[in-house]
Amino acid sequence: MKFLLSTLVFVFTFFLTTNSSFAQSKSVMGFSDDNAKKQLALEANFDTLLNSENLDVWMKYLTARPHHVGSPYDKKVVDFIAAKFKEWGYDVRIEKFNVLYPTPKLRLLEMTEPTKYTASLIEPSIVGDKSSTQIDEALPGYNIFSIDGDVTSELVFVNYGIPADYEELEKRGISVKGKIVIAKYAGSWRGIKPKLAAEKGAIGCIIYSDPKDDGYYQGDVYPIGPFKNKYGIQRGAVMDLPFAPGDPLTPGYGATDNAKRLAIKDATSLTKIPVLPISYHDALPLLKALRGPVAPVNWRGALPITYHIGPGPAKVHLKLEFNWDLKPAYDVIATLKGSTLPDEWVIRGNHHDAWVHGANDPISGLVAMMEEARAVSILAKQGHAPKRTLMYCAWGAEEPGLIGSTEWVETHAKELSEKVVAYINTDGTGAGFLNAGGSHTLEKFFNEITHVVHDPQKKVSVFDRRNAINIANNQPSWPYYKLAALGSGSDYSPFFQHLGISSFNMGFGGESSGGEYHTMYDSYKLYKRFKDPTFQYGVTLAKVAGRTSLRLANAEILPFEFSHFSNIVSKYADELTKLADQLRKDAENHNKLIENGIYDLVSNPKDNFKKPVPKITVPYFNFAPIENALIELKKNASIFSMAYKEGIKNKANIHKLNKVLKNMESKLIRSHGLPRRSWYKHHIYAPGFYTGYGVKTLPGVREAIEQKNFKEVTAQITILSEVLNGFNSSIIEAVKLMK
Amino acid sequence: MKFLLSTLVFVFTFFLTTNSSFAQSKSVMGFSDDNAKKQLALEANFDTLLNSENLDVWMKYLTARPHHVGSPYDKKVVDFIAAKFKEWGYDVRIEKFNVLYPTPKLRLLEMTEPTKYTASLIEPSIVGDKSSTQIDEALPGYNIFSIDGDVTSELVFVNYGIPADYEELEKRGISVKGKIVIAKYAGSWRGIKPKLAAEKGAIGCIIYSDPKDDGYYQGDVYPIGPFKNKYGIQRGAVMDLPFAPGDPLTPGYGATDNAKRLAIKDATSLTKIPVLPISYHDALPLLKALRGPVAPVNWRGALPITYHIGPGPAKVHLKLEFNWDLKPAYDVIATLKGSTLPDEWVIRGNHHDAWVHGANDPISGLVAMMEEARAVSILAKQGHAPKRTLMYCAWGAEEPGLIGSTEWVETHAKELSEKVVAYINTDGTGAGFLNAGGSHTLEKFFNEITHVVHDPQKKVSVFDRRNAINIANNQPSWPYYKLAALGSGSDYSPFFQHLGISSFNMGFGGESSGGEYHTMYDSYKLYKRFKDPTFQYGVTLAKVAGRTSLRLANAEILPFEFSHFSNIVSKYADELTKLADQLRKDAENHNKLIENGIYDLVSNPKDNFKKPVPKITVPYFNFAPIENALIELKKNASIFSMAYKEGIKNKANIHKLNKVLKNMESKLIRSHGLPRRSWYKHHIYAPGFYTGYGVKTLPGVREAIEQKNFKEVTAQITILSEVLNGFNSSIIEAVKLMK
Repeated sequence: MKFLLSTLVFVFTFFLTTNSSFAQSKSVMGFSDDNAKKQLALEANFDTLLNSENLDVWMKYLTARPHHVGSPYDKKVVDFIAAKFKEWGYDVRIEKFNVLYPTPKLRLLEMTEPTKYTASLIEPSIVGDKSSTQIDEALPGYNIFSIDGDVTSELVFVNYGIPADYEELEKRGISVKGKIVIAKYAGSWRGIKPKLAAEKGAIGCIIYSDPKDDGYYQGDVYPIGPFKNKYGIQRGAVMDLPFAPGDPLTPGYGATDNAKRLAIKDATSLTKIPVLPISYHDALPLLKALRGPVAPVNWRGALPITYHIGPGPAKVHLKLEFNWDLKPAYDVIATLKGSTLPDEWVIRGNHHDAWVHGANDPISGLVAMMEEARAVSILAKQGHAPKRTLMYCAWGAEEPGLIGSTEWVETHAKELSEKVVAYINTDGTGAGFLNAGGSHTLEKFFNEITHVVHDPQKKVSVFDRRNAINIANNQPSWPYYKLAALGSGSDYSPFFQHLGISSFNMGFGGESSGGEYHTMYDSYKLYKRFKDPTFQYGVTLAKVAGRTSLRLANAEILPFEFSHFSNIVSKYADELTKLADQLRKDAENHNKLIENGIYDLVSNPKDNFKKPVPKITVPYFNFAPIENALIELKKNASIFSMAYKEGIKNKANIHKLNKVLKNMESKLIRSHGLPRRSWYKHHIYAPGFYTGYGVKTLPGVREAIEQKNFKEVTAQITILSEVLNGFNSSIIEAVKLMK
Repeated sequence: MKFLLSTLVFVFTFFLTTNSSFAQSKSVMGFSDDNAKKQLALEANFDTLLNSENLDVWMKYLTARPHHVGSPYDKKVVDFIAAKFKEWGYDVRIEKFNVLYPTPKLRLLEMTEPTKYTASLIEPSIVGDKSSTQIDEALPGYNIFSIDGDVTSELVFVNYGIPADYEELEKRGISVKGKIVIAKYAGSWRGIKPKLAAEKGAIGCIIYSDPKDDGYYQGDVYPIGPFKNKYGIQRGAVMDLPFAPGDPLTPGYGATDNAKRLAIKDATSLTKIPVLPISYHDALPLLKALRGPVAPVNWRGALPITYHIGPGPAKVHLKLEFNWDLKPAYDVIATLKGSTLPDEWVIRGNHHDAWVHGANDPISGLVAMMEEARAVSILAKQGHAPKRTLMYCAWGAEEPGLIGSTEWVETHAKELSEKVVAYINTDGTGAGFLNAGGSHTLEKFFNEITHVVHDPQKKVSVFDRRNAINIANNQPSWPYYKLAALGSGSDYSPFFQHLGISSFNMGFGGESSGGEYHTMYDSYKLYKRFKDPTFQYGVTLAKVAGRTSLRLANAEILPFEFSHFSNIVSKYADELTKLADQLRKDAENHNKLIENGIYDLVSNPKDNFKKPVPKITVPYFNFAPIENALIELKKNASIFSMAYKEGIKNKANIHKLNKVLKNMESKLIRSHGLPRRSWYKHHIYAPGFYTGYGVKTLPGVREAIEQKNFKEVTAQITILSEVLNGFNSSIIEAVKLMK
């Protein structure tokens, strides 16, 4: 352990020399020495209050029956959570939104040629896991927000169904126009697959879990092990999430009782073609019946067949009908009023709705949040109520498209923009290593927390355990905990990318893999056997997220700083120039190979490859406005750090300063939003238009380059530099308040 | 095509300025301008004589029945070949050796626990391929030179059964001591698997073809496509080939009638444990029954199971008995006496024996060689007999371990060492791209040939087509055809690595993949459907190999030079220093991770990984003797090139010069051979002791480093530098003769 201890010492020394100020403690950003001591004592006390047994008992109750949106048990879950928070002394409201929530009326998938096969589309009960017998009460496998449809056509295998896959098809002269595509899960967020397939002219889309990515190739399948058995079906939303999350009928505003609703036919975020998810048991006969070219090596899965692309001779008939009903989405909002700054809010959230039982997703995270809230309430009763208001939110209708949180945020947008300091999200969680993403203006702050919370198995900090992986994999050791950039996929999105509120998303994983995600088998039984059996990591998550909430709630000066942000945005900007250079080089190389006949020379005449067409040449762009803004950012971040070190001269300015700091993230949004998706207003982080959950940083410029929309690149460079310059002005404003 | 043409021009310009001399032509190394013209005219004539129909007709006859060593049809094949050569005017001898050739008497593999399964071990007939019905006449699936055995034990899956795999087992605390291992084909030559398993204490070894490497994962299986179906069994030798090839009972000398033979129990090149190859149909139930840790990702194949390592609970019983008979191995030696230099020999060879029908392996190469020989004989009749003696050899008993060629070379070692200029080997061949390996003292010579023979489909040189792949794969374009270094796996080995005779091995491939190798399905039918249906590449091979033979036979000055050799050996030497540095760094890094507890921090307690043990630290070696010898080599190669350019002052020295040049390769051997395997005497190229066919260059030093035998590294550095210095002296001798 010697090495680690010395790293730890190094890190603290670093803080000492660059971050300490007369008013600032060495160990807790935003606190004076005295208050830091008190805060650390509070946290030590907080830890002792956490009881893993509560997580177990609550999970057992909350996962006893399927509790998807609109189900009878959904309301039971909501009432249980609300009652608990009330019992602990929180001010509890249940906010209800009426949202579009289609459920299956008819699901039919059959192969009509060259042989007959009717897909079973069911997940049978598992002996030894009683919850898997509650089939009648559960939603079957389907993709919510698929349109109704009745289509018959030849099948084409499109790998993951992402842009690169369609390039491979094009090389082979294969079109999906008028065909039904079958795509593997993974490689992108699921909603991208039907979106792109429809853009390419397909009339239907089947998505299946290949055992290579999610099944026996990974490990023993349920119930022997936790991986996906041949009947498991991944449910999930396929709305156009990178366009906007939330209720499709109330885009951009709350789905309240009296809200004006679009007609279903006008709801742009529904799919354009019918989509159905199936198991690998049902996919096997379909894929086996395909002929045509053999799929490229990196397309091949782990089914015992030669993967062919088609089209056909397999022909399938896909018929889907849904009940297009509105259902109630309930958000439980539990508030603990701030003792001195009640109008500054720190919000914690985790959704409660599940696809079926949802032991892992989302209940494992929810019970950790509840235990955190329970301990916080005891601290309050002991006289240590948070200075700022702390709100715990259990969101409904996350699974269909972050609907509960989005509708709530849209409804209360103005107040939230004014009051919220930060939003801290969790969702499903497991065992192993801390994974956290978030606003880089809070990275330095969060890093401190990762050094003081210990891994429950290894007795070192969660930082050290996370960093050990880098070292073991021969990657650079982390000087501090590096936050991932947030894309989408959980309830932070409306706070972060729509309103510009600094956010976190966090959980543990790496030692709790499985294939239960969105299936009938995400049960209490499975969780207890294979995930976090004693809830020791659930409690650890409560320690990390609890400290994040409590420190933000109690800090004297909000613990934002800008050097980490400056560094990472400079890195993102470097990526942009490299991306343009790479695309330019690729196009030039490709065109040269065509010109010199190389593709023709290496091609096998038997393969019938199409003659490749030249690629568009990528021009040089003027990145200078961004680079100049980043030079300023670096300078200003440094000035801010120095001022922070010297301390606030005029204590009367602290409140004003905190207001400026709280609003910093909002300087990164623009009301017009990103091109063709105005709901997403953050110009540093967004989910990728063609990746879904996967983040695109500096998305305006990056996606314009990727999509070879060269005019837009220049326009977006201007916008981004303006955004960064606005951010720079706010830093200067903050610095002035510290002088 | 612009780009390629300009490359071509560049290459020829290069030759013009660095290689031309008053006596030397611009285009044909070793020939004066006048004679180069004649040689080129001869080659043009040669090309017109080649007739692809002959290849077809002969293949059909030669593959009509199974013709393994000692089979009735083996003698028919031999007589057919001999008769053809006689008919063409060659002086033909059939040399017979009596060699150990065990055949199966009893093959039993059964799983006894946890369920019963008896392996079928058969390759059923295929409708539409009549040759696959000749089961009674064929040898079934077995590994020749496995010992008899009757063992029962738990099974352990060992991936490819190579050293890196045993390191993974060790990490998990799994020993194969007293167990039976099951290994996948590929990753090494097959004989390495039982050799290493026995070293690790296993008592039996099963080898199977996983469909990921060789089966449906690759493409459609036979008879739909050419890939291995579930019943295909790869036969093959498992003698200790990297120790020595040839008859196990007559090590180092010819297996003539009166040769003294070892008792079978004293034959060290037999395996130490019983070995059996099986199909993936038979492997599936065994692998499925294994439990224990899940295999690492890169161990997993394409069977529809979770791959476990074991040991057990699968328990298998392996019983093997063989007929330990001597069988006749026939070599057909067809000689065309040199018109002016009958005592300088150029030898061409391709084996004729097959595991079953052997359409691809070896008949596709044999018929190309026969057509080459037929055309050469017509040239001779037209008054253009080769100046040097040309010998065409059809080797017997190659499949069991290069036995026919090895026994012949051992029998005639003295005469061959004196007379042979070069040996040119072919074996099975297909369609696509020229693959050639050989002595780098002939690389520049061979490069010329690759520029004048055209690809039959693309109408560019075989060089340009081969080079196009590099360019398409973003690798550096080749300035000249790069010969691979030769390891083992075909009949060049005794000439090259035992006697130190300059050698080539060549064939076409890349557009004729399949899974027929050493199975019942390597049939004429399969070859015609999926390999080289019109034998256009067979004829192209005859053009390349024919030019190689004819130019070597007719050259005035033998076309050796040493700058290419100097460059490549310097590259190999660089690899050695990098290898030592890398192993040192790996060990240091590994030991530091142990010291700092990193392995412990990243390990999942559920996985039960063993605490890793520190690695031996690699010392620094004195590579200076090699580096110094290489500086001399570079200088001498340059002096030789300049002298060659200026031309031979005294024509009377040409004969002496050619003798020196002919013997250059033999300066690279040492009679004591490599450590622990004295049969291999070449100190630049050898098959790897733990890779088999795979080459190890500078093998004495390289393997001492790899095996962490550090004392031996120093000793081998001395030997290698002496070898190189001896080579240097001979270059100087050659230069003197040119002055």
